[in-house]
Amino acid sequence: MSEKVLPKTLPGFMELLPNEQIKFNEMMDKIRKAYERFGFLPLDTPIIESSEVLLAKAGGETEKQIYRFNKGENDLALRFDLTVPLSKYVAKNYNEISFPFRRYQIGKVYRGEKAQKGRYREFYQCDIDVIDKDELSLLNDAEMPSIIYSIFKELGFGDFTISINNRKILNGLFEALDQKENSVDILRIIDKIDKIGKENVEKELSELGVSQEKIDVIMNFISITGSIEETIKQLRDLKIECELFQTGVNELEEVAKNIATFGVPRENYKIDLTIARGLDYYTGTVYETFLNEYRNLGSVCSGGRYENLAEYYTDKKLPGVGISIGLTRLFFQLTDKKIIEVGNNSIAKVLIISMVDNFEKSIEVATQLRNSGINTQIYTNNDKIKKQFQYANRLNIPYVIVIGEDEIRDNKVSLKNMETGEQQTITIEEAIKIIEK
Amino acid sequence: MSEKVLPKTLPGFMELLPNEQIKFNEMMDKIRKAYERFGFLPLDTPIIESSEVLLAKAGGETEKQIYRFNKGENDLALRFDLTVPLSKYVAKNYNEISFPFRRYQIGKVYRGEKAQKGRYREFYQCDIDVIDKDELSLLNDAEMPSIIYSIFKELGFGDFTISINNRKILNGLFEALDQKENSVDILRIIDKIDKIGKENVEKELSELGVSQEKIDVIMNFISITGSIEETIKQLRDLKIECELFQTGVNELEEVAKNIATFGVPRENYKIDLTIARGLDYYTGTVYETFLNEYRNLGSVCSGGRYENLAEYYTDKKLPGVGISIGLTRLFFQLTDKKIIEVGNNSIAKVLIISMVDNFEKSIEVATQLRNSGINTQIYTNNDKIKKQFQYANRLNIPYVIVIGEDEIRDNKVSLKNMETGEQQTITIEEAIKIIEK
Repeated sequence: MSEKVLPKTLPGFMELLPNEQIKFNEMMDKIRKAYERFGFLPLDTPIIESSEVLLAKAGGETEKQIYRFNKGENDLALRFDLTVPLSKYVAKNYNEISFPFRRYQIGKVYRGEKAQKGRYREFYQCDIDVIDKDELSLLNDAEMPSIIYSIFKELGFGDFTISINNRKILNGLFEALDQKENSVDILRIIDKIDKIGKENVEKELSELGVSQEKIDVIMNFISITGSIEETIKQLRDLKIECELFQTGVNELEEVAKNIATFGVPRENYKIDLTIARGLDYYTGTVYETFLNEYRNLGSVCSGGRYENLAEYYTDKKLPGVGISIGLTRLFFQLTDKKIIEVGNNSIAKVLIISMVDNFEKSIEVATQLRNSGINTQIYTNNDKIKKQFQYANRLNIPYVIVIGEDEIRDNKVSLKNMETGEQQTITIEEAIKIIEK
Repeated sequence: MSEKVLPKTLPGFMELLPNEQIKFNEMMDKIRKAYERFGFLPLDTPIIESSEVLLAKAGGETEKQIYRFNKGENDLALRFDLTVPLSKYVAKNYNEISFPFRRYQIGKVYRGEKAQKGRYREFYQCDIDVIDKDELSLLNDAEMPSIIYSIFKELGFGDFTISINNRKILNGLFEALDQKENSVDILRIIDKIDKIGKENVEKELSELGVSQEKIDVIMNFISITGSIEETIKQLRDLKIECELFQTGVNELEEVAKNIATFGVPRENYKIDLTIARGLDYYTGTVYETFLNEYRNLGSVCSGGRYENLAEYYTDKKLPGVGISIGLTRLFFQLTDKKIIEVGNNSIAKVLIISMVDNFEKSIEVATQLRNSGINTQIYTNNDKIKKQFQYANRLNIPYVIVIGEDEIRDNKVSLKNMETGEQQTITIEEAIKIIEK
């Protein structure tokens, strides 16, 4: 063996060192536990699907980015999100599933994006959706923010705000102003207001061919601020004559009220009339979530309500509401900006170091610790003691147990707390009690 | 929307219903927890790698089965095991990793096998390996069976036996008999002894050109039975003059002795001199695990020791020992043979049913339960009560809480145990205590 292959990982693919991976998994576990606490069922679908199924709906950017290939006679593709597989799954298992169907899925998806810092071609999405037949109660729209709250409270990245809106309000407004065909452009222009200022927004809207009268309505609309109650009142005061708009306002009011009932503190959510999300997909409530101190990271958890999950596969009407966390990107951002620290995590809680050649006692102690549910590693090499302690340090293992001749004779262990440096010779039962704390 | 795409899942790809998925995840969680209890660090590598990296070593069957494709100018492939990505990872991060490096990886791998019942093209592998520089203590070989024991004890599929052997014994035997070039054929013939009988084995060996004298040695070798001590004694009594053989016997003796020290009961492991595993990969201890009542399932957990993990990527010598559980196939076999039952699992422990239109109290109760760590779902539709209870039944949710006008007035909940049918009206705190049991 002399010709070696360079052991490289492809650009755009995250591959972490162990201490980073421990942190990553901690975040994923917290998200999963929160999803389960709200009664969502696990789902795992193949990463490979037939291209026909995956691309039933897709087009444009998605189709360009997709990993698609042939194997034998089969035209295959890698999933690019978890929503299309869910649609297929629900349509396929319609008769086996109990509705309302609440499912979570945490898995990798693939997009052949241009490789650049913070952009990934393989990344984890953590999704939940509630799907029902024909109609889905608006209570579910109010529950989503309480799940977001529960997760980000536990993840502990500081204060955060869940922005909610209702697409019917925006769609109704554009309908009332007879600007449906301009809606994408108008939203794009509105979205720049923080950057280019109010006057330039008006100017660009005018260049788009929107009359001054209508620009005034739009500017009034986007200047609405205040508490939820004040916002709802001002929306009604606009006197937009459009049923869709009024339905949107009523839904938003009801959802906002119930979010409070779900125990989400007032400071953690607000109405933001400018958020729209995917233009043609969402049809009702929409969500974005921002870390208050790092708003420039963009939304860290988004979602919304849609009319019909699986229309490309079935005639059955399946409304739903869901949210998604892009965990790989979020993890990159949080570590890149040093919002989370990696390096103080460990899997093993104890490293056992033997001062004698016979490992019998060390093995017995390890087995006792493991049987008590304590993650334990035996250092199996006869390296110098100093090197073994360094190893414990590098792996951030909080406790070291040293087994020497004295310990074997007295049937005790020497337990060292690696953080405080404190060392004591005690029974194994006493050691277990200390470590369990 | 009238033209519908058939919502199909590709053959050879496992996609489970929720109650099956819950069971599958339970098994995966138990394996993961056991791996962590033994201090293994998590690893997650990309599913896509460059073909050059993935196929550095491969050939034959692997190369034929691999999913390989181009994206832009890149020649890519999907990983077909977790060992090659580990090799790449260790070679790539050699300077960042602390040795001995203990890692677990649980993830999907891809092989374009012929589609047939129980054969999967996408399947989970659950691997652990211990890698060290230059030399790796034999204690690690003895620890592996204790991990297998810990896992299969907890999974609870009945009695099981871990078969161990040492490849040096077989290799040494063939070396001493001057039959190295026939070793693959001899092993294949020996392996059939249960099917074709002793005489036919001798006949086939003779046809292969092995002399009667050597056949006698081979037959003496494979007829060795008895306790571990007896087996070791008989191996020594064969008086094979070959250093490799004797080293193998010594290693096997030491490993077997330490397996006992690791607390594995005698009835759960034995020496089986005929198991060999991959012919050129393993070089020392090898393992297979059988469910006693379902030996025809084949080995449910296998592995062994190898000389050099990453020789295709680096000059560094990296010996290791590891085991692997093919979870997807195992799950299929266990459910197919009804060894495990799915259908009595649930994520939600409580379903809240509201008898009144106002869900405020239901939401409050749900939030209290969730804050106590109890997985809870609110039934958000105003369906008939009977239908709501049926829903709880279909999802195997063990408790239903009913909130009606009386409960709201008295600030209580009606808790129904879905298994016993017992129903009581109590405070929420009392309900939490009962559910937590």
